[in-house]
Amino acid sequence: MTDRAQATRERILVAAERLYAEHGVLAVSNRQISEAAGQGNNTAVGYHFGTRTELVRAIVRKHAGSIERLRERRLGRGHAQLRDWLGCLVHPTAEHLAGLGTPTWFARFAAQVMTEPSLRAVIVEETLTSPSLARTVAGLSRCLPGLPAEVRAERNDITRLVVMHAMAERERALAGGAGTPGAGWRETAGALTDVLAGLWLAPVTK
Amino acid sequence: MTDRAQATRERILVAAERLYAEHGVLAVSNRQISEAAGQGNNTAVGYHFGTRTELVRAIVRKHAGSIERLRERRLGRGHAQLRDWLGCLVHPTAEHLAGLGTPTWFARFAAQVMTEPSLRAVIVEETLTSPSLARTVAGLSRCLPGLPAEVRAERNDITRLVVMHAMAERERALAGGAGTPGAGWRETAGALTDVLAGLWLAPVTK
Repeated sequence: MTDRAQATRERILVAAERLYAEHGVLAVSNRQISEAAGQGNNTAVGYHFGTRTELVRAIVRKHAGSIERLRERRLGRGHAQLRDWLGCLVHPTAEHLAGLGTPTWFARFAAQVMTEPSLRAVIVEETLTSPSLARTVAGLSRCLPGLPAEVRAERNDITRLVVMHAMAERERALAGGAGTPGAGWRETAGALTDVLAGLWLAPVTK
Repeated sequence: MTDRAQATRERILVAAERLYAEHGVLAVSNRQISEAAGQGNNTAVGYHFGTRTELVRAIVRKHAGSIERLRERRLGRGHAQLRDWLGCLVHPTAEHLAGLGTPTWFARFAAQVMTEPSLRAVIVEETLTSPSLARTVAGLSRCLPGLPAEVRAERNDITRLVVMHAMAERERALAGGAGTPGAGWRETAGALTDVLAGLWLAPVTK
């Protein structure tokens, strides 16, 4: 790929992520993205990415790599406690978002993609198959050996929902001018680790 | 409104909710809804509801009234414990969905509306202003007097996210043939009450 094609792709990715986060993934046309990316040619998105689904996949991949590296680094520290494993679910995304500066759009974008029936598979394929995530979930399970399998599966699902949607809400608040950006993400990750620890340690009633 | 207009409105509401839940609110046109509702006239949605936003609002209202009545009834029993108040957040929606038979579409529809920037205000206005919800949140707060205000606000937000998105995931699983419908909703509500109790009782670390 030429440098120029690479630069155009990057401009499209940035414009698409922002427009998707602010207006809704399905509400934004490839033509609007091409225009926002400064492309004279309205078909630039199609030319560089193909379908909307492939553009969404490219945006997810752009962030997933960095989050994966941050999680690998955190896993390398060695863990034994429930809170450490939960930290591996929460902090890498928060650190990645903090590193992007303010405002960010990825958390809102990702929450929408996960909720949107036609796009859900993209984020599942690109993020839930991560090796570091699998190691984290396995580590978490070892901390709670008595938990029935179906409760474990249910709490895993809820944990994923909490992380994804709470990050999106926090991003929305930060973009709207609430709180201090850097501290905001660290605090959010800490507060989420607290509630997730409570969630996992909660007694199971029948 | 004539009986016939009323019946047409109802057919449109049912068709719209299903199409929205399955394909995404912004991916479905008013024309497709008119067709699915058996209306020869493609502009039937516009005639009966106006904009998409007003149609979304009408779908939300149709369910919100029943959930509100179920919550009022549960509040009438008198409560003192944290789990009772959490039950008032979880069971009314679960009971409403169980009463609709299988499949339902409202939980997936509502989760999308909440995540969609252009529609979010509709569900906030129509459901988060409920008097019974305000009483429930106040009751919950009285059970945890030592919790700092900002932690309380944060846990309230996360609770709302968990209820909304976990119900949507459960609905998706039930629609796909997983589990026993009736028991499914009761079990889901019980499991959510467990994790929410853990979430609210979790110690706050700094």
